Amino acid sequence: MFIQASCILEFTCELPTPSIFMLRPKSGLSQFVLREDFQITPYLAMTEFSDTYGNLCQRLVMPAGKVKLQSSIVAACADTIDVDFTAGWTPIVDLPDPILHFLLPSRYCESDKLSEEAKAITIGCNHGYEQVETIRRWIYTHFQYQYGVTDSRSSTLDVMATKTGVCRDFTHVGISLCRALDIPARMVTGYLLGLKPMDLHAWFEAYVGGRWYSFDATQAEPKGNRISMAYGRDAADVAFVTHFGNAELSRMTVDVKETSPSWL
Amino acid sequence: MFIQASCILEFTCELPTPSIFMLRPKSGLSQFVLREDFQITPYLAMTEFSDTYGNLCQRLVMPAGKVKLQSSIVAACADTIDVDFTAGWTPIVDLPDPILHFLLPSRYCESDKLSEEAKAITIGCNHGYEQVETIRRWIYTHFQYQYGVTDSRSSTLDVMATKTGVCRDFTHVGISLCRALDIPARMVTGYLLGLKPMDLHAWFEAYVGGRWYSFDATQAEPKGNRISMAYGRDAADVAFVTHFGNAELSRMTVDVKETSPSWL
Amino acid sequence: MFIQASCILEFTCELPTPSIFMLRPKSGLSQFVLREDFQITPYLAMTEFSDTYGNLCQRLVMPAGKVKLQSSIVAACADTIDVDFTAGWTPIVDLPDPILHFLLPSRYCESDKLSEEAKAITIGCNHGYEQVETIRRWIYTHFQYQYGVTDSRSSTLDVMATKTGVCRDFTHVGISLCRALDIPARMVTGYLLGLKPMDLHAWFEAYVGGRWYSFDATQAEPKGNRISMAYGRDAADVAFVTHFGNAELSRMTVDVKETSPSWL
Amino acid sequence: MFIQASCILEFTCELPTPSIFMLRPKSGLSQFVLREDFQITPYLAMTEFSDTYGNLCQRLVMPAGKVKLQSSIVAACADTIDVDFTAGWTPIVDLPDPILHFLLPSRYCESDKLSEEAKAITIGCNHGYEQVETIRRWIYTHFQYQYGVTDSRSSTLDVMATKTGVCRDFTHVGISLCRALDIPARMVTGYLLGLKPMDLHAWFEAYVGGRWYSFDATQAEPKGNRISMAYGRDAADVAFVTHFGNAELSRMTVDVKETSPSWL
Repeated sequence: MFIQASCILEFTCELPTPSIFMLRPKSGLSQFVLREDFQITPYLAMTEFSDTYGNLCQRLVMPAGKVKLQSSIVAACADTIDVDFTAGWTPIVDLPDPILHFLLPSRYCESDKLSEEAKAITIGCNHGYEQVETIRRWIYTHFQYQYGVTDSRSSTLDVMATKTGVCRDFTHVGISLCRALDIPARMVTGYLLGLKPMDLHAWFEAYVGGRWYSFDATQAEPKGNRISMAYGRDAADVAFVTHFGNAELSRMTVDVKETSPSWL
Repeated sequence: MFIQASCILEFTCELPTPSIFMLRPKSGLSQFVLREDFQITPYLAMTEFSDTYGNLCQRLVMPAGKVKLQSSIVAACADTIDVDFTAGWTPIVDLPDPILHFLLPSRYCESDKLSEEAKAITIGCNHGYEQVETIRRWIYTHFQYQYGVTDSRSSTLDVMATKTGVCRDFTHVGISLCRALDIPARMVTGYLLGLKPMDLHAWFEAYVGGRWYSFDATQAEPKGNRISMAYGRDAADVAFVTHFGNAELSRMTVDVKETSPSWL
Repeated sequence: MFIQASCILEFTCELPTPSIFMLRPKSGLSQFVLREDFQITPYLAMTEFSDTYGNLCQRLVMPAGKVKLQSSIVAACADTIDVDFTAGWTPIVDLPDPILHFLLPSRYCESDKLSEEAKAITIGCNHGYEQVETIRRWIYTHFQYQYGVTDSRSSTLDVMATKTGVCRDFTHVGISLCRALDIPARMVTGYLLGLKPMDLHAWFEAYVGGRWYSFDATQAEPKGNRISMAYGRDAADVAFVTHFGNAELSRMTVDVKETSPSWL
Repeated sequence: MFIQASCILEFTCELPTPSIFMLRPKSGLSQFVLREDFQITPYLAMTEFSDTYGNLCQRLVMPAGKVKLQSSIVAACADTIDVDFTAGWTPIVDLPDPILHFLLPSRYCESDKLSEEAKAITIGCNHGYEQVETIRRWIYTHFQYQYGVTDSRSSTLDVMATKTGVCRDFTHVGISLCRALDIPARMVTGYLLGLKPMDLHAWFEAYVGGRWYSFDATQAEPKGNRISMAYGRDAADVAFVTHFGNAELSRMTVDVKETSPSWL
């Protein structure tokens, strides 16, 4: 399906504020970006670079006052995400070198402290996809989606304590529990068609059966039509925006819909 | 200045033909891509990857029959290119590691065979920018711009023999003569505002005075308002398209103009 | 000075245990490795790869039973580390793209929670090197070097609470406080001539005045003659060994001494 | 088998000469480097970096006068190289992205001009391994191994004309003919146990049946016990040494033998 996604972000800064955005997706195996538009008003010079994960990062200094960013994307996306309960655990000795990285604990994913919990939640599961799906469902079932309880400093241990948070937090919990079982897991940020309430989104991928599969602990069922924006170990790597200073987000509008490119 | 560039390419293939395009620029220090649009008709699945130089490569199998590609770009570009006759030769010992690569001969740039010519052309020049500009002007003055004499297999030695060719050939000669003087040089493909006749374009950069400078042997004077699409050692690295099989280019239209984004 | 460093590690495993070691240094700007020797007894097949930071990682499955690793290195090292109290804070806007990464919080460095502490410790300091050296000295003065209080799960917040730990912990505290002041900081593992008690070591680097400087919170004064083994955000990236399973370290011997290569 | 390889190179320079060596192998899937020793007399500062192919490059300025380099390596190597006549041609659409690069012509491999020859030599062959082995054997049978006919500027077309050259030239011919058939091919430099006459060596790898296979056009039969030093498109990428200036190689001794590490 062709998906058009857009977001508008308005910030107010008292002082010039260096900021890094990760709002521009790349084409990849699972999506092809057909059109992409990135605007900033008032116009100001930006640069762009690729981070260690290959994500595009937009770098700018937001001036004092109001700034508006608008990003819109048209991409060809898969209608579904793959589901395979037979995908087994990949023994560590068989993991490709670059995947090993995603077994390690990270800022918001204290997987090294969650071994017991991960085992308890997945008891009786076949090793691999079934463990991850059980974790995903456990979060979906037991956690409450609620804004305002967590913030940008909340890590998995914090979220496990209150069982409340947003997509970012659910994702961190999923990642941590996977890694605690020696299953590589990474965070994805992006857009999801039909997300309620609509927002910038985050989910996770786990490496089982020799490849990455997508999991979304905020949804009842597996859903496709996603645009992936950035990949990393956790939100420290893939925050939509990182400010070095203070910037107030005064407006944020996200829209995702099916489209049919005019030229098709 | 904001530049809008677009190109339309139509191909006819008898058999399905794997092809790699390099038609989508990235933001960088010298340009910021605000909008980018890439269309293929009939629609078919593509993937995209970054090559060893960081260039985006679009990979697809063109089906038998006709295929039309359309690419359009809006980018913020510098109005001028830097000129600095005082920029001296950078001693090899001071070159950053990744730059060394661009001293070596490559498929279309037999710099190892052009030492005498390079010295003769630049005799009396200060080492550095002045040498490169002298080479550029020598090519501009002595070479005839003409389609149809060279083809995709023509290398610097071939072009030096006839002193005739197109932007790609002029660029290869410039690169070869620079490298023959131990000046790192690389090829750039892209768009140039005001190019006559309008076409996809190529020029070269030389590393002097501790940084890259742009040189265009097809132009009388230094001109800015360029969109860089790909960087590499020569056309083997940065061809707009590489076909593995036969594809006839039946139409090619390129347009480059100043624009003012509607939202500014 | 030429330094010879060696370590012997003996492990006992009950089950085959996938493990990743980071024990083989690379030549770099600050050191040149002249000789390097890596042994495992009984002999078993290993592979080696470079991680995202360019560190060499040795990958193997330790068999059940005893395994002995021996690593020895001869390297040309700087006798001193650079000290420059005039090196100022590098504004974020001037940081090279790849350095930005080292401003972010990481598993063991909750810099996002330590802003107040970092400001209090460095009050009155000139921004830059002086802040970092003040942090380093503050740790050296106020923290007690003691084995057994912390373990591989202890993060900066844990260590700040007890003000007790080992080189790894001191390093995490230094890194966290730097990042809390928007100074990029990274962990280094390696060897230090004259370290007491001799051990594998860790310290940190901070990016001020446009380059990296070394800081070691375990030492009274700046000391050179270091061999750097691995660089990363914190111990999650650069642990000497990461086991996926249980391995008992039954013996560890480290030796670092001045040498004079026989062929000089 | 454990192989010990060493080489001694003596150079005489009239002027200080910047040079890049590629003499230090890395561990990889096909070999594990246990010990490595790199000496220069008189001692002088060097740096080391990884090129775009991941090869280690030693960078130094050789002083006026005599310089001696000694390199010795102990590595665990495979006793045989894989041979598989059933390995088929990998369709271009199935090649991994980073492999595509090795289909392109390069400085010494004018594959774009050798389509007819490649087809003629391999007529009747099954596509894939059998084609490559036929090319290899064709070179081995029809070319004369002789020093002094070719030099560092000789490319495949030159060598095809005289059918005479050394390992480097045979390798270029093999690579060019493979690429002309849309088979990715790359150059390897290194050591071969039992080579006659003993020397630094070069061979090529071709990508068929979904992986790289080794081919050596200087040998009657497939032979293992190789240490790979560097990989690249051709000798422009992987020369043992690249001088920027003049350096006379006054002595070169290479020794390769089976060994048994003392600690085994």
